[in-house]
Amino acid sequence: MIQFLRNVWYLGCWVDEVQETGMLARTIAGEPLLFLADGAGGISVLRDACPHRFAPLSLGTCEQGIVRCAYHGLAFDAAGDCVDNPHGPIVKALSVKRYPSIARHAAVWVWLGEQFADPTAIPDFGFIDRTPPEARVTGYLHNTADYRLMIDNIMDLTHADYIHASTLGGGINTRAKAKVSEDENSVTIEWTAENDRLAPLHAQFVTNSDAMGDFLNRVTWFAPGNMLQRIMLANPGEMATAPVDSMTCHVMTREGPHSTHYFFCHTSDGVTANPAIAPVVLETLVGAFSGEDAPMLRAQDRRIGDADFCSLGPALLPSDKGAVMVRRALESRIASEARP
Amino acid sequence: MIQFLRNVWYLGCWVDEVQETGMLARTIAGEPLLFLADGAGGISVLRDACPHRFAPLSLGTCEQGIVRCAYHGLAFDAAGDCVDNPHGPIVKALSVKRYPSIARHAAVWVWLGEQFADPTAIPDFGFIDRTPPEARVTGYLHNTADYRLMIDNIMDLTHADYIHASTLGGGINTRAKAKVSEDENSVTIEWTAENDRLAPLHAQFVTNSDAMGDFLNRVTWFAPGNMLQRIMLANPGEMATAPVDSMTCHVMTREGPHSTHYFFCHTSDGVTANPAIAPVVLETLVGAFSGEDAPMLRAQDRRIGDADFCSLGPALLPSDKGAVMVRRALESRIASEARP
Amino acid sequence: MIQFLRNVWYLGCWVDEVQETGMLARTIAGEPLLFLADGAGGISVLRDACPHRFAPLSLGTCEQGIVRCAYHGLAFDAAGDCVDNPHGPIVKALSVKRYPSIARHAAVWVWLGEQFADPTAIPDFGFIDRTPPEARVTGYLHNTADYRLMIDNIMDLTHADYIHASTLGGGINTRAKAKVSEDENSVTIEWTAENDRLAPLHAQFVTNSDAMGDFLNRVTWFAPGNMLQRIMLANPGEMATAPVDSMTCHVMTREGPHSTHYFFCHTSDGVTANPAIAPVVLETLVGAFSGEDAPMLRAQDRRIGDADFCSLGPALLPSDKGAVMVRRALESRIASEARP
Repeated sequence: MIQFLRNVWYLGCWVDEVQETGMLARTIAGEPLLFLADGAGGISVLRDACPHRFAPLSLGTCEQGIVRCAYHGLAFDAAGDCVDNPHGPIVKALSVKRYPSIARHAAVWVWLGEQFADPTAIPDFGFIDRTPPEARVTGYLHNTADYRLMIDNIMDLTHADYIHASTLGGGINTRAKAKVSEDENSVTIEWTAENDRLAPLHAQFVTNSDAMGDFLNRVTWFAPGNMLQRIMLANPGEMATAPVDSMTCHVMTREGPHSTHYFFCHTSDGVTANPAIAPVVLETLVGAFSGEDAPMLRAQDRRIGDADFCSLGPALLPSDKGAVMVRRALESRIASEARP
Repeated sequence: MIQFLRNVWYLGCWVDEVQETGMLARTIAGEPLLFLADGAGGISVLRDACPHRFAPLSLGTCEQGIVRCAYHGLAFDAAGDCVDNPHGPIVKALSVKRYPSIARHAAVWVWLGEQFADPTAIPDFGFIDRTPPEARVTGYLHNTADYRLMIDNIMDLTHADYIHASTLGGGINTRAKAKVSEDENSVTIEWTAENDRLAPLHAQFVTNSDAMGDFLNRVTWFAPGNMLQRIMLANPGEMATAPVDSMTCHVMTREGPHSTHYFFCHTSDGVTANPAIAPVVLETLVGAFSGEDAPMLRAQDRRIGDADFCSLGPALLPSDKGAVMVRRALESRIASEARP
Repeated sequence: MIQFLRNVWYLGCWVDEVQETGMLARTIAGEPLLFLADGAGGISVLRDACPHRFAPLSLGTCEQGIVRCAYHGLAFDAAGDCVDNPHGPIVKALSVKRYPSIARHAAVWVWLGEQFADPTAIPDFGFIDRTPPEARVTGYLHNTADYRLMIDNIMDLTHADYIHASTLGGGINTRAKAKVSEDENSVTIEWTAENDRLAPLHAQFVTNSDAMGDFLNRVTWFAPGNMLQRIMLANPGEMATAPVDSMTCHVMTREGPHSTHYFFCHTSDGVTANPAIAPVVLETLVGAFSGEDAPMLRAQDRRIGDADFCSLGPALLPSDKGAVMVRRALESRIASEARP
């Protein structure tokens, strides 16, 4: 049986995704959700099913925070309360489940479980708020692979040397020294290299013709699939005044057993200084993931199928340490939710 | 486990569907069937599988009531008896199951079960026979949704106000007074309205510029998915000489757990008087179903999945009363078939 | 539960299929395999999954017998041994399962089970080696049908009279006298006809205008799905100097429960004498299978679904005798493998 974590904050959508039409349908951890602009600047999260006959409310219309079911005309506000029943009285049964949600860091976070939805449990992606919107490189992609494979992929960035060899790879990620640590809420892996040959895409940021530089790449994971990455690079010995200092969040939100929503937001001193390059950076990020990571993750997912990954006895490499710690942390949370 | 009703008459096809090529393959309640013209003006229903290796007989050829399997040349008559075995003697095992069937009301009705196939159990769709063929608006459509959702959709026509707002809706169906009744074999729901604003498509049939009229819409259901609808409308107070008096049958024949054959035949005084408009009426009916009902029914079916609809606790509205009575009647029949 | 035979030689690929790019991915009996040119003229068979994270090795690159995983750069030789681990020491866990395999008769044969892989158990397809490559008509096709249906199809060639009526059929296969025999390792069916009307495609090889001839068609099956066919035909009474004497192997290698790899190689005196006609013969064979057999086998497979064919009670014809004996031999082997 598939066990979806429920008592966690899932990043459900970027605020901008809802504001265009007033609503957005998205399934998260098997639950069909409707992200609904409440007409007062907020967004609430309802179950995307009319209580009458389970028609998706997202097939209806949305006006000023009221969604009307296209099938029999029942209307609901952003609290999930029925505000119009053309067929009779408004009774208690005519309400739509509303999930706890918080708009923070340009995203809507939703909580599916029954435990207390602690607002402080949302990871700190404050770098987003500190960056002007036009300098943020924000995206949403979908992939048909288990979200844990998608997390593993970020927690072991040595894969960049091989799968993104001509851009982010070339060997430095594998050669870098990795340090892993964890606390109650997070797992961090940090790769550092000194006076090493930078990846092709990074070479332009140093002044020596051999593309040698100092390099730091740190990823911190927070449950369930939220990762915060900092990349710094500089001419050898000049890290204190690094010309590249970027922050990226990679968020893997489970859709179903073999499908994942991938949200990312990238900021850097360079894009902040020159927001005109944001579209080029976006294209690079989307191209790397869609063209290189995504097919590999899908192929891996198909090979594993419905088996438990660990039960298949994968050979562990030193570079897996962060990913393994994340999987253990997730398993421990799932076990804890399963306890009565 | 899915339980298909078997001891009922299923409308399997329109007679015209078979007469073009002499045979038609269609799966009903999970059973692959072959509707075969018998060469003497009749149509019989056989299992669409050769007894030898289960090749679909419908891949073979049909000549004067004899179907020949394309795979090894065995030939069968409309009784299902083998009439040619090129490989040896004709033995008893070489016969194809034939199902009881009756051609009535321009359709072939088939009985899948083991109990007595009572000819009087076919619903009276005599309006078809009383209408010249050129004045009948007859159609067949397929949809990937549970046949019970397709039935519910007809038993609660208030949906027309919302989903067909610009043609058959606008509010009158919801405002109309509904009366529900049942007897041993049927469930009837009747909506009536007096001096009410008619639906856009009906407004043309009254002479007042406000489109006010009297309205009657009656649907009677017979197991498993046969519904007979009468619509009448007139200027206020003139129902006795209603200019519109139409009969339509809507038949939902289960194909599989999530797919349904939809047969309809519509007649009206207007089309009888001017059969040239039949194609326009057909286009309207097909458009309303395919463009408006069908996508909603599919979306509803996906939300419900393999769960039992009632176990999900739908909120009942007064307008559901007819549909609920039909579901109960179906459940009672299924339970009765399941008893040894 | 599906039981795949494992302690048999499966024809996995034609040698030529690998030599183009150095590797080939193919799933056999549910097992994802990589056929890898070893750089020394041989081909070895590995599990197509990196031991690290189960990424398909076939997505990687192959150079001189070394396959490198595209995901994290691990490299393996044709023995399945890791020869490069950029992330740490080469440990025992970093090896890929290698399956016993033998290159013989222009094909790679692979053994999936744990018992002794006896090289003498490969069927004798020596006719391939005795024919110059340019005179061999070799092919590979894929079909989504149970491999046993694909075998049955060859073991009862009377189907040619109906399904290939205009080329290989017309009646002679059904009229021919069939003789079936078996020994411990094989089942043979032989059809013979004397002074009978030949199939349309064969008529050109006799000199009388009535297309009358003597005909022999013999098929021998070896487990799991290897069949060797000899066809001879001549003017009546002249079989001793038959102008047509052809050998064809038809190999049905199970991919999954409802999919099969079909390998064939056809040789004849005629093609040997004039290899220029090989492409025409290939086109004929591919056309007959893909256009005529394959759709029928798929339709049959869908009708049967996941049921056991025999449990459905098929009516047996005399012409099924060979196929039935093969099914019994397969069942006996499967039962024997299932015993502890």
